[in-house]
This record gives sequence, C-alpha cells and structure tokens, in this order.
Amino acid sequence: MASDNASSSVLPVSENQAGTPPPSAAVLLIGNELLSGRTKDINLPFIAEALVARGIRLLEARVIADIPPAIVAAVNELRANHDYVFTTGGIGPTHDDITADCVAAAFGVDLPINPEARAILQAFCDERGIELNDDRLRMARIPAGASLIDNPVSAAPGFRMDNVFVMAGVPRIMQAMLSSVLPDLRSGPVMHSVSVACDLGEGTVASALRLLQENHPAVEIGSYPGKTGQLGRLSLVARGTDETELEVVRLALETLVTGLGGQLTD
Amino acid sequence: MASDNASSSVLPVSENQAGTPPPSAAVLLIGNELLSGRTKDINLPFIAEALVARGIRLLEARVIADIPPAIVAAVNELRANHDYVFTTGGIGPTHDDITADCVAAAFGVDLPINPEARAILQAFCDERGIELNDDRLRMARIPAGASLIDNPVSAAPGFRMDNVFVMAGVPRIMQAMLSSVLPDLRSGPVMHSVSVACDLGEGTVASALRLLQENHPAVEIGSYPGKTGQLGRLSLVARGTDETELEVVRLALETLVTGLGGQLTD
Repeated sequence: MASDNASSSVLPVSENQAGTPPPSAAVLLIGNELLSGRTKDINLPFIAEALVARGIRLLEARVIADIPPAIVAAVNELRANHDYVFTTGGIGPTHDDITADCVAAAFGVDLPINPEARAILQAFCDERGIELNDDRLRMARIPAGASLIDNPVSAAPGFRMDNVFVMAGVPRIMQAMLSSVLPDLRSGPVMHSVSVACDLGEGTVASALRLLQENHPAVEIGSYPGKTGQLGRLSLVARGTDETELEVVRLALETLVTGLGGQLTD
Repeated sequence: MASDNASSSVLPVSENQAGTPPPSAAVLLIGNELLSGRTKDINLPFIAEALVARGIRLLEARVIADIPPAIVAAVNELRANHDYVFTTGGIGPTHDDITADCVAAAFGVDLPINPEARAILQAFCDERGIELNDDRLRMARIPAGASLIDNPVSAAPGFRMDNVFVMAGVPRIMQAMLSSVLPDLRSGPVMHSVSVACDLGEGTVASALRLLQENHPAVEIGSYPGKTGQLGRLSLVARGTDETELEVVRLALETLVTGLGGQLTD
C-alpha cells in the first residue's frame, strides 16, 4: 500500500542526502560448500532485503571458493567499487576458515590476537567449562585496525575493517551480526516496490511496458514470468523511491493489462 | 557409498585427461530481482550439482543487476578466467531483457535476427495463434557466430557464444537448456564426497581435522556447523576424486569423532 507522500517512508531521508547518490553495496559469500551444491545459500536474500529497507543499493554479489588469492582479489575489487561490502563465511576455528587471513592480506595489515575478542571467547568458554584452545583462539585473530561485530549466538565475533563487514556463514549468526551493524551505515532513499500480476504473456505486454518504462525513467520496471515458465502468471514489478510515482505506475500497469484483454491475478 | 576403485566412477575419466587440469566454470546470474530479495535464486545450486556430476569445477558465481556495462564487464572477466561460463536471465522479450545485447557487446559482434531462431519462434506462435510481434522477435536476436540452445518449454532459444552459455532465468527452462549442453562439455575427474555428522563443536575437532587435511592434501575437508549454529550437529565433509582415499578419510573422520568422545549422528 503506497502512501500519498514519498516523504512519509518508514526511514525518512534527511534533507542533506538529497544530492548524494545512495550508498552501494556488494555481498561476498565465501565457501566451497556453496559452489558444490551442498549448501543452498539463504544469506543473500536476507541481506538484500535488509539493505533495501535501509535504502542501500545492493549492486553485486559473488560466491567464491576457499581459495586465498581469489578471496583477497574479490575483497579488494569489491571494496574499491562499493560503499559497503558484506562477507559471509569462513570465520570459525577450523583450517578451512580463512576469511580473516584473507581480509588482513587484502588490507595489507597484521592479524594479531585481539584482546577484546580473546576476552569474549574466554568468558564464553569459561561459562561452558570448555578450554579456549589454540583453535578456538584462532577466532580472536582480528585484522589490525578492525572493530568487532558482536556475535550473541556463539561468541566468536565478526569484524568491520574500513568498509568491509566480515560476518559468519551460519544464517542465525549472520542475521544477528547484520542487525547490529545496520544502524551504523549511511542510509539512502528507500526503494519501494509495487507489483501487478496478470495472465498475459511477456510478448503481449512488452511494447506497452517499454513505453511505460520510457515515461518513468526514475522507476525500474521488471517483468517476471512465474516459476514454471508457463503462461498464466506474470508479475510486473515497479521499484522506485517516489511512492506517489509508483502508485501512478501501478495504476498504469493495471490499465495496461486490462487494455490488452488480460485478467489481473494475484 | 564409495566403490573400491576410483576408476569405476559413473563418468569415467579417459586416460588422456590424466595430466590435464579439470575444466573450470563460473556462473553469472543476471537480474535486479535477485539483488532486491524479491527472487530467491534456485538456479545456482542446480547448476553446481550438474557440473559436479560432470567433473567440472565451479569456482565462482556472480549475481549482477540489469546494468549493461556491469554485465559486459562480468562476461568478459569470467570468460577469460574460466573454461565455461553459464549465464541465467534476461533473454525474454521485455525491455529489461538485455543479456543478448550485452553478450554481443562483450564479444564485439553484431546481434542480428537469427533465421533459425526466427523459424522456431514463428512455428511456436503459429501453433498458438499468436503474432510473432517485434517484441517476441527480439528473442531471435542472437550474437553473430553463436549457436542456439534448444528451449523445449517456451521456444525462445538460449545460445552458446564461444565458451559462454546463455540460458533463461526461469528454472524449468534453464534446467532443460543445461541438460542439452552438458554432453558437449569437456568433463574432468568427478569430485565425490563423503560426510560424517557428529555432536562435537568445531573447536573440539579443529586440531585433529587440520592434521587429517595435512595428511590428505588431494582431499578437500570442510567443517559445517548445522543451520542453527548450535552445538549438536556438525558435518565433516571430504571431497575428492579418489574414492578409495575418500573412504580412508571417512573412516579417519569417524575415528577422530569417537576418539574425541563424540557421537556419530546423521
């Protein structure tokens, strides 16, 4: 449901942001298991939705294997091209957890035991009567200059290094870490979306849709056939920051569908 | 279930491949809807599993928005770095379907109407009594020099341009297209995997796991806590091409778990 005034959006845009482009972001999902088909990632859509709600534009995501030069290169390329980079995975205590090493290498800094992280892990282990052995202590190695990201689930912290946010791969932990860093991020105008579903084929709506897109260059209009690829369920989606304009586009989409002899569905 | 001889794998490796590195691949998922959280991709894990079964190493995946320079750059970077590149999305008839344009630009070739593709679309439209209008005809624009990939679901073909395979985003269509191109790809030694689940924490198994990894450098050993991030369900996974060695590693993983006082779970 669109409001009648874009300035009433949930996260108001401060006046001095009007001339600034919205912050951009990239996500870097790290782990062999995501590229073998073993693990189906659910972190990307979660992060995407959280960033949309803050008015941050997620422009790219990458999934890479546990190969140090590949991780270092991706971190450096993404942090140079985007305001924020969010990584998931590879910060546990085992030999295949190499994200901290790679982020330190990407920034050209040391990876010492962080006293604050060590204290957090020590307290967690003491409470459970387990030893803070060398492997668990690996999780206290934090690149020099980074600040910690709290892990309320299993103690081992993530960290923020400049514009790179290093988070766990376990979804529940990642989600807690993301929640704790979101308030620190610069926000932009929130992208709202409206959607109209119909029983027409893409080839039937394409011309009218193209014209509508040309008339509303500030709105992103997308056409998405249903999962099955069969006729009968086409979603026409418009995204933009101006809710008034989106409501105009939504009505135009409905008129477009019915004018072409289609039925609105849901 | 591992066999007693690696050469008995489902897709036998021909002798002359012994010294050749296995083919590498990248996946490029194209579409704003994947970066807004609206659409949860299911194509990547499907492609990943299919490539694993062919002995092709999927080393990287990228998700990018419908931004032409970003698509062109990603196509060119990935095709230079990998034996095969598989793209999904953006080959329909609407204005936001720009993958063919971008692939043609990446290769520096024209994008003419392909007579074969046009005939396929014409037959599909004739059969259904719909017009092959300009928008539907857009789907017959194929980069010069590319060969078509059959689309048994909705006719509009994908295409192969050199080492780049351009496929639909709709999962059912993508799956059919992938099936039809897989037999043309060079295969490599298939990566098999074995898995042992236990109730130990990662910090408890890490040292022994590291030693096991050092003793089996040809095997990739990974440690994956359960989805909840709670203790009680840790998967230890070993992947490699030699099933005999994998069976040795699987037994070693079981011994490792029980030797540390853990229970094997499933």
